[in-house]
Amino acid sequence: MEAGGLGEVKTESVVCFTEEEPLVLESGAALGPVEVAYETYGELSEDRDNAVFVCHALTGDAHAAGHHGDSERRGWWDRLIGPGKPIDTDQFFVISPNLLGGCQGTTGPSSINPATGQRYGLEFPMFSVRDLNTVHRRLLEKLEIEQLHAALGGSLGGMQALQWAIDFPLAMERCAVICASAELSAMNIAFSTVAREAIMRDPDFQGGRYHESGRGPNIGLAVARMMAHITYLSEESFAHKFGRARRIEGTEPGLGPDFEVEHYLHHQGASFLSRFDALTYLYLTRTMDYFTPFDEDEIDKKLRGNPTEFLAISFSSDWRFASPHSERIVSELKARQLNASHTDVESPWGHDSFLLDVPEYHEALAQFLQREAS
Amino acid sequence: MEAGGLGEVKTESVVCFTEEEPLVLESGAALGPVEVAYETYGELSEDRDNAVFVCHALTGDAHAAGHHGDSERRGWWDRLIGPGKPIDTDQFFVISPNLLGGCQGTTGPSSINPATGQRYGLEFPMFSVRDLNTVHRRLLEKLEIEQLHAALGGSLGGMQALQWAIDFPLAMERCAVICASAELSAMNIAFSTVAREAIMRDPDFQGGRYHESGRGPNIGLAVARMMAHITYLSEESFAHKFGRARRIEGTEPGLGPDFEVEHYLHHQGASFLSRFDALTYLYLTRTMDYFTPFDEDEIDKKLRGNPTEFLAISFSSDWRFASPHSERIVSELKARQLNASHTDVESPWGHDSFLLDVPEYHEALAQFLQREAS
Repeated sequence: MEAGGLGEVKTESVVCFTEEEPLVLESGAALGPVEVAYETYGELSEDRDNAVFVCHALTGDAHAAGHHGDSERRGWWDRLIGPGKPIDTDQFFVISPNLLGGCQGTTGPSSINPATGQRYGLEFPMFSVRDLNTVHRRLLEKLEIEQLHAALGGSLGGMQALQWAIDFPLAMERCAVICASAELSAMNIAFSTVAREAIMRDPDFQGGRYHESGRGPNIGLAVARMMAHITYLSEESFAHKFGRARRIEGTEPGLGPDFEVEHYLHHQGASFLSRFDALTYLYLTRTMDYFTPFDEDEIDKKLRGNPTEFLAISFSSDWRFASPHSERIVSELKARQLNASHTDVESPWGHDSFLLDVPEYHEALAQFLQREAS
Repeated sequence: MEAGGLGEVKTESVVCFTEEEPLVLESGAALGPVEVAYETYGELSEDRDNAVFVCHALTGDAHAAGHHGDSERRGWWDRLIGPGKPIDTDQFFVISPNLLGGCQGTTGPSSINPATGQRYGLEFPMFSVRDLNTVHRRLLEKLEIEQLHAALGGSLGGMQALQWAIDFPLAMERCAVICASAELSAMNIAFSTVAREAIMRDPDFQGGRYHESGRGPNIGLAVARMMAHITYLSEESFAHKFGRARRIEGTEPGLGPDFEVEHYLHHQGASFLSRFDALTYLYLTRTMDYFTPFDEDEIDKKLRGNPTEFLAISFSSDWRFASPHSERIVSELKARQLNASHTDVESPWGHDSFLLDVPEYHEALAQFLQREAS
């Protein structure tokens, strides 16, 4: 971990919608109250014009940088956010919220439904990437920020930032869309559906009412996580990290974990259970499946003259959302004469590269955020 | 389906080892009786020199060609085996057995253990690819065939044929190793371990004693199959077959299957349950994980002068066992001055290409089997 990072930070919380004035979703459904957990790093400028909005990925949370007391355990994007880092807290006021449907402080399917006094479970309405932004735009209102310097995120976070910039041309100066997609492929959806089935078919899922019983779909959620985790790495990164090393060389072959890569995945599955909720996993993966921002009616008219500067970043070994996903985003934007560019970064670490120390990536992001507006 | 295929065929069965004269595995464990299910197509020549041995993949069986009564439902390699086909039954006597540890007629972990009168379950010994061959060599003895014209197979089947040719230099003239590997990568093992965990963690797995209860690990096995099935296709084949088509266009978003690709995978998972056994899935995947034929002590000495002609075939879009796996096999053989060549076939269908109509592949195989020995 780099020296000079942020110190201890706290997660804040704000009620963005109430039962009386609920969030109205794209589907027309109403939801309230909606509370949002968020963290901020750095100082808001007097002109309130230096805000950078960070959107997290599928299993992320508001805790992007700094630490919560143990300086060894730091936020998921601590490599990028901090004094002198690519998202420089000496220059920027960084806002990092948990998203709608989440399980880390923002209202989601495991929150209490005031109409029943019970957790929503599967009665939580389906929501879209656009709905994520409706909630976070309200958060910005509460923070009295009218325009962002930039919004950015990786994977689902990039999708969220992209939709925001499409829907609100003046919402931000710059939008960085990192290893994201504007249209999941059939294979992307395939992995997601298997993960969801692993969860929903687990007898302990109990139709989504598992919290009340004290037994959750831990088997299904761990299997889903282990499988998904494979898709976040690359053949090369697996080979580099684990090869065919065995935990204890020379043991007799057996069916249980033996190779290091197996122990690693088991650990990934187990540790996920303590920090993530199965219902959130279902809803957020599904939100990604249905995300097709350029399929909208009148998208040409809508994008016309949008002044946002877009940067799409992909990673050479990312096979979950490979470079063509980013190319597609940029070509859709450029076809409407918008200011968009694509950087494909050479990196062996697969989709997870967006979380890691990849100098070319950090450099590209830093430059994009810091250069003079064109 | 091509015209002119084989007609109705029957699965035969032969006891290859008995309780009194058991199979001795590479580990030293003894197993008996061992019964083998197999099919044959074509006629054995008078000189008994035209036998071609077909080794099936992970979830295959003895029924490789022809049909069992319904001419619409044909064996898994019916595209390749038959009169005038690449494995030409007008020329060759084709033998296709189910393998040790199987669940389709050959003794496996769900067979009855004579020592207890119950199914083996997890008491079935671990076995190696070499052990598969020990059993099938006994089958050949029973059929009074001393030398094969060729042995071949795809995936696990290719691994089996390769090990056979390595261990017994005079066993066959030719060995075709199709989309196989001589060393699974960490990512290969990763997918296998998640599949096994999905099965073994299913409460209905019951430590492998599920047959007695009437409830099997159907959830785990279906999830394992759905996940594995993704890895047998390619991004391109998924896009081509399904794209983002939905079963019923215009339905409201939901968590259950909606996109065609989801319905397809659900069907794959469900139909697998009626034809495959979870214990066999565990054992055979594990046998593949441990397969490293070139790591053997004294492999140089062992391979010296082996006259077998080897052909490795890979497919351009196969990412489960991509071309480098085949390249590795051929380079190991060539490094010992053996007669080996590699054909990388352009095909969009991923690992499953070995089961499909890919003309360049069929042609390469036909030529390899039919040309004059060099």
